[in-house]
Amino acid sequence: MKLRIQAVTWQEDACVLIDQTKLPSQITYLTCRHYREVVDAIRRLAVRGAPAIGIAGAYAVVLAAREGVTPLEKALTEIREARPTAVNLSWAVSRMQALISDPKKIPLERLLQEAQAIHEEDLLGNERMAELGAALLAKGKPVMTYCNTGDLATGGIGTAFGVLRQGYEDKKISHVYACETRPVLQGLRLTTWELQQNEIPFTAICDNMAALILRDRDVGAIILGADRIAANGDAANKVGTYALAVLAKYHGVPFYVVAPTSTFDLHLGSGDQIPIETRPSSEIVGVLGNNQPPVALEVWNPSFDVTPHDLITAIVCEKGVIHRPEASTLKAILDKPSPH
Amino acid sequence: MKLRIQAVTWQEDACVLIDQTKLPSQITYLTCRHYREVVDAIRRLAVRGAPAIGIAGAYAVVLAAREGVTPLEKALTEIREARPTAVNLSWAVSRMQALISDPKKIPLERLLQEAQAIHEEDLLGNERMAELGAALLAKGKPVMTYCNTGDLATGGIGTAFGVLRQGYEDKKISHVYACETRPVLQGLRLTTWELQQNEIPFTAICDNMAALILRDRDVGAIILGADRIAANGDAANKVGTYALAVLAKYHGVPFYVVAPTSTFDLHLGSGDQIPIETRPSSEIVGVLGNNQPPVALEVWNPSFDVTPHDLITAIVCEKGVIHRPEASTLKAILDKPSPH
Repeated sequence: MKLRIQAVTWQEDACVLIDQTKLPSQITYLTCRHYREVVDAIRRLAVRGAPAIGIAGAYAVVLAAREGVTPLEKALTEIREARPTAVNLSWAVSRMQALISDPKKIPLERLLQEAQAIHEEDLLGNERMAELGAALLAKGKPVMTYCNTGDLATGGIGTAFGVLRQGYEDKKISHVYACETRPVLQGLRLTTWELQQNEIPFTAICDNMAALILRDRDVGAIILGADRIAANGDAANKVGTYALAVLAKYHGVPFYVVAPTSTFDLHLGSGDQIPIETRPSSEIVGVLGNNQPPVALEVWNPSFDVTPHDLITAIVCEKGVIHRPEASTLKAILDKPSPH
Repeated sequence: MKLRIQAVTWQEDACVLIDQTKLPSQITYLTCRHYREVVDAIRRLAVRGAPAIGIAGAYAVVLAAREGVTPLEKALTEIREARPTAVNLSWAVSRMQALISDPKKIPLERLLQEAQAIHEEDLLGNERMAELGAALLAKGKPVMTYCNTGDLATGGIGTAFGVLRQGYEDKKISHVYACETRPVLQGLRLTTWELQQNEIPFTAICDNMAALILRDRDVGAIILGADRIAANGDAANKVGTYALAVLAKYHGVPFYVVAPTSTFDLHLGSGDQIPIETRPSSEIVGVLGNNQPPVALEVWNPSFDVTPHDLITAIVCEKGVIHRPEASTLKAILDKPSPH
């Protein structure tokens, strides 16, 4: 049974989100009728994944406009800043904002159309990236993925996950190793769930076991997403990605980043300019449940890291494949017209 | 307050263990009067750490002999096989067994003396390794450690942890980065607790954040323990160690293994002969608590991995420092007489 999951939808004047904090044990939905409910959902990771929070952010703008928030500008800033690293969120808000020339004449109908267009384009982009990414793979090998990049993280079948799905269908992928992705366990909770829904054989591992798999299991590729890509190809993604990139290089395994053009931030020359979100220590020590230490622990919890472009074999976006990403190869692909 | 913790003690005819599964929230003791209680404690990780399970195993032999188990041989095999990877356990059992020439005349008193000697030698070895290891460090740098190697894992101040303690006292270590060590979180639960007891400043991180620390924080060394070291210097240790060794090499950070000679298994030519324990999937998915997936996940849970000797800068044992470990450098140090 290939269930079509939708992380974000627009239904009867509301933005409806799967509450991803409850997965995989419970499928519950949040019906957001106020933009602040969406902002809250983004902050507490009820909806996450760079493309998905872009889409949710666009619908949040629709809600704020319909609520008649004044100044609307302030609400837009709040939405834009709900999370700092993924550029898709501010990209979507800016695209919505561009439609508002006169704050006294908010084009409500046009805003909803634009949000739906952002959603639809993401869905189509996913399908294109799935084809382009699968074409990079050799026959019948296992691959590794990280964090969560499927239906739950996007508007369609996913970024990296779309490649997994297409690659498995094309018999280019035999098996998926899904890293658990500490601290919030998007891999163990969400990706395994999506792999089950799609009947793709997989093994879940702790992040610290990835090196062994890369050494011993003839892995064809590591395939994962991104939250923001700078003009030189440096890519921010879930913390732990940089380590995997180094391990991939050491073991001679191709390292593919799959992300739509909405994830690129060409205003930034390199990855060191990407803002990295630091999240609460409770996400790390929460794992101890009732077995908490008597004295609070000093903990560091960055949510993202930046992988330098020279560790990335290729970036797949809906406009094409950027082999050996750097400023020139990136520009050559991004200057192409959109495929849809 | 520098509390002297003892993972294993012999008190009034019993082997007394801290139940490490309850740490850090509760300090509870297990008073084992039957060898099978010790075997059970070893299996379920109530006592863990290669040297500590060697000592516990020796006391278990004392208990089995006092209980008059027949054939005693069978009990010894049970103790020896309680966990497969750390060689200290079978090393200790063999040393005890060598005292029994006639199964009809078990030297009860002598067995207890031998177990206590094993314990005492480990304690003295810890102190020697702490000095030797600290001498390798540059002044005032942060270091990184993995899993747990202190009082809880040994008969004294620890293997790698002893070096942390001595290094901090000597102002050679400014700060410790403690990796949480999935799946059983010995770093987050036990090492942080020991660091707090010893008033050493530290930051706990998820294992997948180590690469960032190595890249950005001028780390002076990675210092960790081992469970079995082959004749060529390949070292089995808690899963995740191999990944750290690769990351250390990439970032030019020295990688030190600290382990007593009881951890060396010179019968094995190389690390690929070391048996690797695979543990239950519940150790991985247990982290999800009540949020378990509706369909069980396929999970891989190896407890250990093997780091090839060429990724190890030096091995510190109580007989000396083995720089650039390989068969010849190992032999040169191990052939020396014991320092105590």
